[in-house]
Amino acid sequence: MSVLVVGTLAFDTIKTPHGYQERVLGGSATYFALAASYFTEVAVVGVVGEDFSAQHENVLRERGVDTRGIMRAAGKTFHWSGEYVDSMNEAKTNLTELNVLEDFQPQIPEGLRATEFLFLANIDPVLQSNVRRQMNGAKLVGGDTMNFWIAGKRAELAETLKAVDVLLINDGEAKMLGADASLPRAASKVLEMGPRAVVIKHGEYGATIFFRDGAFGVGKHPFRAPALPLDEVRDPTGAGDSFAGGFMGYIAAQGEITREVLKRAMFYGGVMGSFTVERFGPERLRELTRQEIDERFRTFRDLTHLE
Amino acid sequence: MSVLVVGTLAFDTIKTPHGYQERVLGGSATYFALAASYFTEVAVVGVVGEDFSAQHENVLRERGVDTRGIMRAAGKTFHWSGEYVDSMNEAKTNLTELNVLEDFQPQIPEGLRATEFLFLANIDPVLQSNVRRQMNGAKLVGGDTMNFWIAGKRAELAETLKAVDVLLINDGEAKMLGADASLPRAASKVLEMGPRAVVIKHGEYGATIFFRDGAFGVGKHPFRAPALPLDEVRDPTGAGDSFAGGFMGYIAAQGEITREVLKRAMFYGGVMGSFTVERFGPERLRELTRQEIDERFRTFRDLTHLE
Repeated sequence: MSVLVVGTLAFDTIKTPHGYQERVLGGSATYFALAASYFTEVAVVGVVGEDFSAQHENVLRERGVDTRGIMRAAGKTFHWSGEYVDSMNEAKTNLTELNVLEDFQPQIPEGLRATEFLFLANIDPVLQSNVRRQMNGAKLVGGDTMNFWIAGKRAELAETLKAVDVLLINDGEAKMLGADASLPRAASKVLEMGPRAVVIKHGEYGATIFFRDGAFGVGKHPFRAPALPLDEVRDPTGAGDSFAGGFMGYIAAQGEITREVLKRAMFYGGVMGSFTVERFGPERLRELTRQEIDERFRTFRDLTHLE
Repeated sequence: MSVLVVGTLAFDTIKTPHGYQERVLGGSATYFALAASYFTEVAVVGVVGEDFSAQHENVLRERGVDTRGIMRAAGKTFHWSGEYVDSMNEAKTNLTELNVLEDFQPQIPEGLRATEFLFLANIDPVLQSNVRRQMNGAKLVGGDTMNFWIAGKRAELAETLKAVDVLLINDGEAKMLGADASLPRAASKVLEMGPRAVVIKHGEYGATIFFRDGAFGVGKHPFRAPALPLDEVRDPTGAGDSFAGGFMGYIAAQGEITREVLKRAMFYGGVMGSFTVERFGPERLRELTRQEIDERFRTFRDLTHLE
């Protein structure tokens, strides 16, 4: 089965202790799609400006990504500029030029509306709800959000969350959304808002999935997947979206959605995130092999499993 | 086989969001010994003052801990006062009254010098080296330290580390000791200083053990154990020492020291830490059963293991 992602296509200007690069292809939909493309069919919906060339689009097409949902608007593509100073876990944003994103009204092409798996990457929750309505037959809906929407559009976000099955957010976002400094308690509160499961990403410490009682299986025991202790993180940009791509892509490729499938998906999410950070931008995601992915899956397993 | 711990016996005044308690029995040796006592024979070496009553000592003796290494000095017992404000991961120290600890010169009683397993809890590295020399037949030596010694007695600590097999420290201490902001790189640098393995504790995110190439087995693949996502952490005091007690106690109870034993010990360390934080002071460690411990071990396993 296939997965459709609605999110941003962007140019990123990134500074890390390992280098500086201007206007690299980026955006949540780009990282998600490239990561998911190793597992299943992927379609992208987003908006770009006149500076987004056929060469840029080819980065996605080379990986077999369906790009007919990419809308072209007058003006420039969304541009983000940020740097990683003290911590490789959090970026400091220097500049956000929304450009064509400002008037983005996502339209799902007719031929893509029956896509079984949907991922609502981090955009305005009003747009997320709008997309969700266009795809009301979706089998599983994943979503992301950020502090900006949690603070500024809490009511709209709450509306979106009612129709999201699995929300993927980081520690700070979970605590803010759940209004609780304890991560497990914050997770419980987020689950009361709608999602059947919430994946909380801990940066270099991995991620935990919390379930609503009985969701996708029995009980509500959480599950924790590691991140790889990497000597060298060159550029963390896109790690979270790559996680989401590996996570949703793996699930979409399975015959059923059981709790065991979701646990394995947590590992594949971590695996794809770990590849992304090895190079600047989405470079590493362009040239992986399924063999490399499965090898790293085994490394993640060895890192956490007793005999 | 049995384990001997040299560390502090203390009275702790603790404030957390869940309450306030004055002069609770505490100290690294206390938490370590109680946690280890569920796995193996334990002996304690430390110093107390005149205010340390038979009742206090009985907390250890009730768990079968050998207390003949507890020295009594004129004056008061070491007193620490601290609180957990924003984070349950790190205490803010309000008061440290060293008292009898100031002139502490640990002497290992003759009858305990042949103890096979030794844990050097967090005390002055000069004293740690001194103890290590008195027990030069030890089969495995674990150790702990803190920022205060890393900054103030780096040379003496380096000397101590040459004769420590497994060092247990937290993220901040590892980065400071290894002088590197990357945890895996910091771990490598710590391993170059002597230890064959280093356990880095990540608070609520668990802990990772890094090995020197070939130490206790083949290769140098790290291993990560989780912490339990607990809704309610009442008092984190002693969690790290309880981890060390579960870790060393489990190892001492096995026939051999393989890498698989060390991995399981990481889980038991996390298990004992998770019990400690459920109540104030060492209360929870006084009344556990081996059955409760093994049940929680299974919970830790379910939390991390794929089918």
